[in-house]
Amino acid sequence: MDAFARRRHTLAADLKARGLALALFEDTEGRRDPSVRYFTGHPGDALLFIAADGRSVLVPWDINMANAMATVDLIIAYTDFGRSVYGAMKAIIERWAIPTGGRIDLPTATPYLNYIEFVEQCPDHDFVCAETSASQKALAMRAVKDEAELAIYAMVSRITDELMDDIEAGVRAGDLTTETEVALFIERELRERDCESTGFDTIAAGPTRSFGIHAFPSYSSAGFGDEGLSILDFGLVYQGYTSDVTMTFVRGKPEGRRAEMISLVYRAYNEAVAMCAPGVKSRDIALRVEAIFKEKGFVMPHGLGHGVGLEAHEMPPVNTRESNTWVLEPGHIITIEPGLYDLELGGVRLENDVLIIEGGHVVLTHSRIVQL
Amino acid sequence: MDAFARRRHTLAADLKARGLALALFEDTEGRRDPSVRYFTGHPGDALLFIAADGRSVLVPWDINMANAMATVDLIIAYTDFGRSVYGAMKAIIERWAIPTGGRIDLPTATPYLNYIEFVEQCPDHDFVCAETSASQKALAMRAVKDEAELAIYAMVSRITDELMDDIEAGVRAGDLTTETEVALFIERELRERDCESTGFDTIAAGPTRSFGIHAFPSYSSAGFGDEGLSILDFGLVYQGYTSDVTMTFVRGKPEGRRAEMISLVYRAYNEAVAMCAPGVKSRDIALRVEAIFKEKGFVMPHGLGHGVGLEAHEMPPVNTRESNTWVLEPGHIITIEPGLYDLELGGVRLENDVLIIEGGHVVLTHSRIVQL
Repeated sequence: MDAFARRRHTLAADLKARGLALALFEDTEGRRDPSVRYFTGHPGDALLFIAADGRSVLVPWDINMANAMATVDLIIAYTDFGRSVYGAMKAIIERWAIPTGGRIDLPTATPYLNYIEFVEQCPDHDFVCAETSASQKALAMRAVKDEAELAIYAMVSRITDELMDDIEAGVRAGDLTTETEVALFIERELRERDCESTGFDTIAAGPTRSFGIHAFPSYSSAGFGDEGLSILDFGLVYQGYTSDVTMTFVRGKPEGRRAEMISLVYRAYNEAVAMCAPGVKSRDIALRVEAIFKEKGFVMPHGLGHGVGLEAHEMPPVNTRESNTWVLEPGHIITIEPGLYDLELGGVRLENDVLIIEGGHVVLTHSRIVQL
Repeated sequence: MDAFARRRHTLAADLKARGLALALFEDTEGRRDPSVRYFTGHPGDALLFIAADGRSVLVPWDINMANAMATVDLIIAYTDFGRSVYGAMKAIIERWAIPTGGRIDLPTATPYLNYIEFVEQCPDHDFVCAETSASQKALAMRAVKDEAELAIYAMVSRITDELMDDIEAGVRAGDLTTETEVALFIERELRERDCESTGFDTIAAGPTRSFGIHAFPSYSSAGFGDEGLSILDFGLVYQGYTSDVTMTFVRGKPEGRRAEMISLVYRAYNEAVAMCAPGVKSRDIALRVEAIFKEKGFVMPHGLGHGVGLEAHEMPPVNTRESNTWVLEPGHIITIEPGLYDLELGGVRLENDVLIIEGGHVVLTHSRIVQL
């Protein structure tokens, strides 16, 4: 059984255990769900139906892409259902003989109006849209990387490290002097190294713009690596999975409050990474960093980290919210990314990807604060 | 009154006419709504409340960005509401004294579970989530560009034309020989010309990959402009608004079926553009193109076009669906993009942006099929 089939099997077993006959996944414009790729390998727009008995059907927009890339029991073109998700639902219910009254799981993100439409168009079945829907089960599954995913992360982390070395060398040599040069160096190199794309818009913010958490626009023709603090936040996508790292470049000897910000971010980073192990609440790590900063009068305006995977932001969260009850376990891959920002002095952030393993962790990527 | 205030005023009048006290707009991760930028100029994550009496408040994630970029009556940081959309809703209801029983409009895309939560957390008010919600009114408003937007389109079209000239020259000169080189040339140049970003992932598909409507990945290290058909589909964003054009590059004398595909796309393009005028149903244009292709035994696997604006795909649609009842009117900016694809021969697509004016149209961009 391949990795995709194993994942569908796990999901189907969960459906069965919860008395659900069928689950729908939707990866469509405006409502992306990479779980469709997670379960089938198909990277484009599609519907995916998985039944409690393990059957599955992929309904892609682009049948050629699906035939080339999907690993699934059955593929039916979306046009065969008149490009209607309700038409597809009705046809699958009939094809698989889902009994009257059977419970059908809809994604948590299903719009109110779509929910009403499913209920009206398929009145003989019981539609369930809940915080515990199969789409959430899929997110929980995706949080714990399986062997196929860990192999991909070994590769994407290595490529990300190589690129960071090249970028550091390029900035030091004066070959990369603007935000755009750095960002486009990444775009070019990643394709030479068989990556698909960046995992999100690369943020390259030179000293004039690094005070913001997320610079807008994400990179510009402004200088990078000049006197002061420059931040580079990027991710590479390999076979669907993204890395996520942040480097800070420091030009000139940092002093006073700026030096304190750098040393505090280092300390927070090191203490946070050291805490990463199975059984630890991710919230406790974030609270520890908050305390480190607070003691010195600083506040971090964003969460400490997040899971990475088919999306740049996945489960588990690593933040101080009371609703965050996640406990780290082997197979989680999270970012640790403390940062401090000052409207005058600029920003400093250090971010790497950390894999939780039995007894501890492995830091997958090797970003750093670079003193120029 | 500036353009943003005028737009909010129009929206508020519509709310009042429909007996709605208040409307919510949300631009958040996973549920983007550039209408927030349309009404305020703020380009980042935010909530926006507009009341029927014309009052408005922006609730941004990044208060610094909002203070720098938003034009709105009032800005309150999201953190002031504990980062809760329900908390913000309750506070605004109280602050503005929305009377008990008042009808509050929610975006059409509101998830079922969020709708339920609004109803439970604000039991004294009547939440409306409908196909006719204010979010849809905003889309209809955005379909008809106002003067501020037309000025932006004059600029972004000119920049797009310049870039197409440069790309044609670069491909002819042998300076741009791979998909990546072409795509990154665009990324670099747009920033030199004060654009923010591309409007969508640039699709650069050389002869080995141009058979797909949307190549995956969208560009690679494969050759571009080699023997056969290469497609380049890109858009530039200037002050939030995107252009959308497609060039096809033909290397070698096209013969047989390939020559027929090119000449049919040209014919379809010319006839479609000629039909663009106020009072014409956009569906009729798409049906005409369908007929042109069908007569010769070809099928186009995608719609003929779509509106452009703050998003790459906006109202009005230009396709053959029965549900498409849009009638063109002055101020609409639509793409016309006929294309034909063959697994062996590759693909050809020609796309420009067309502004509807009194009595006819203006073709804003000047893409073409380039014979190398």
